Amino acid sequence: MISLIILNNFEIPMQLKFREHIEKIVPLTDEEFSFVSQHFSVKKFKKHQFLIQKGDKSVYSFFIVSGLLKLVYTDDSEKEHIVSFAMEDWWESDYYAFFTQTEATMSLECLEDTEVLCFSFEDYKNLCSGLQKMERFFLEKATFGFLSSQRRIISSMAFSSKERYEQFLKQYPSLIQRIPKSLIASYLGVSRETLSRLSS
Amino acid sequence: MISLIILNNFEIPMQLKFREHIEKIVPLTDEEFSFVSQHFSVKKFKKHQFLIQKGDKSVYSFFIVSGLLKLVYTDDSEKEHIVSFAMEDWWESDYYAFFTQTEATMSLECLEDTEVLCFSFEDYKNLCSGLQKMERFFLEKATFGFLSSQRRIISSMAFSSKERYEQFLKQYPSLIQRIPKSLIASYLGVSRETLSRLSS
Repeated sequence: MISLIILNNFEIPMQLKFREHIEKIVPLTDEEFSFVSQHFSVKKFKKHQFLIQKGDKSVYSFFIVSGLLKLVYTDDSEKEHIVSFAMEDWWESDYYAFFTQTEATMSLECLEDTEVLCFSFEDYKNLCSGLQKMERFFLEKATFGFLSSQRRIISSMAFSSKERYEQFLKQYPSLIQRIPKSLIASYLGVSRETLSRLSS
Repeated sequence: MISLIILNNFEIPMQLKFREHIEKIVPLTDEEFSFVSQHFSVKKFKKHQFLIQKGDKSVYSFFIVSGLLKLVYTDDSEKEHIVSFAMEDWWESDYYAFFTQTEATMSLECLEDTEVLCFSFEDYKNLCSGLQKMERFFLEKATFGFLSSQRRIISSMAFSSKERYEQFLKQYPSLIQRIPKSLIASYLGVSRETLSRLSS
């Protein structure tokens, strides 16, 4: 296991955090965690750097060890739409591009200095086929990703701006201090002025 | 296997269809398919009947053998919002209620006479723990459910009414003839008049 630590540049606190994250869903032996670790590499990014840019041909998936990111869809008139924010202990990517092995249509940019563990689609497949309990892990992550997206669809259709803002505050209380108001407004689909009114 | 067919009221064409559906993702032996079948029951519903009603305490998940359904969120002012349509070969439920074992906040209603295979969350857990390849099956379904929801979020934020309508036509060409225009308008988040203009 020591050689793997060196190989992948996994520091001990990061290993513990990552293992704890996985073991919330599936318990792992030391050998299994070593096998899992082999599929990931550590990467560090500075604020404003991109992990994914629209048009990228090879898209990775990221587990966020520390930091904060925005996943953005830019429309034909170059307007940015915030699809999601991602912080510590979250997984993020342009998952359509990742799973269908197509070009990125979104970008993933650091709002803070960020440290991630990253893996390719090939790594994902090898990990799932080599250790079946990781399928259970990713099943739980995909299921709750789906539920979260569906709740967002419902809130965008049926909730007022005020209700959407209150839901955001309740779901992500720690993010309010870390994200510029203009980005929260974009995520909620309201103007900067409306958000000021809601948050005053 | 014969006894299971009788037990669960599975007719042969339905069995073949269901098995083919699963085997698009994971191949099954006869014994495995028999094990899978044990977790499902056949149910038939008439147009306008509800498979789930808001407030239901025990929510099932459904594989649609034939027919058409709408998944609806009703807001506090009793306005209906179409979260999704579901037709043959699709899985549908109030999945938040299903996976978190909480009361239904949505309703699922037949737009046509509908035949489904249904299973409980207990069945889902037993099926996954008893036959690990079904975890792979549900992982693929959950992943593509997540991707589809995320595409819908992006289209509601970044696409015009016209683009959303064209995307719907492209994705679900067969549904246009089967669904009342007023429901398509609700799904797309446009007025009935706007939809008439778009589809003329």
